[in-house]
Amino acid sequence: MSESNSVLIGRKPVMNYVLACITLFHGGANEVKVKARGRAISRAVDVVEVTRRRFMPDVKVKKIDIGTDQLASFEEGGTPTNVSTIEITLAK
Amino acid sequence: MSESNSVLIGRKPVMNYVLACITLFHGGANEVKVKARGRAISRAVDVVEVTRRRFMPDVKVKKIDIGTDQLASFEEGGTPTNVSTIEITLAK
Repeated sequence: MSESNSVLIGRKPVMNYVLACITLFHGGANEVKVKARGRAISRAVDVVEVTRRRFMPDVKVKKIDIGTDQLASFEEGGTPTNVSTIEITLAK
Repeated sequence: MSESNSVLIGRKPVMNYVLACITLFHGGANEVKVKARGRAISRAVDVVEVTRRRFMPDVKVKKIDIGTDQLASFEEGGTPTNVSTIEITLAK
């Protein structure tokens, strides 16, 4: 699957990302990955739930992966920060 | 599995819930469910990641379920609110 079928969740309203998912599926994608880090993780789950329940009931959650990304500190010598990640794969 | 092997994530610091998970495993549990709703979902992922990476590397993520809970409105006649949920099953 090409990486272009990914929706990276940020701080915009949930519906923006829901629309992005729907657009990818309507454009012919069979799989869409919804990715988020840190506090956006709960929004990623919202996006998936709204997409499935309100707009595309034929879309299933195929896989959910969680993990940790290590962010380099801005200051030299500073300790790196860990941030949790989620990747939810939707498939129809 | 008994329902007592669940850790419900709220607004306390992540380490409180990490300690709860570790205590359940050390008390003999083979599975622990980490549950959260709404904005606490990202904290649930933090709890799982810290538990696995820093304290219990032998613990694996067995299953992740996401869903939607419908909350009744406080006011009569109000529309119910949907809230996303996550349930992460840890097993060693």
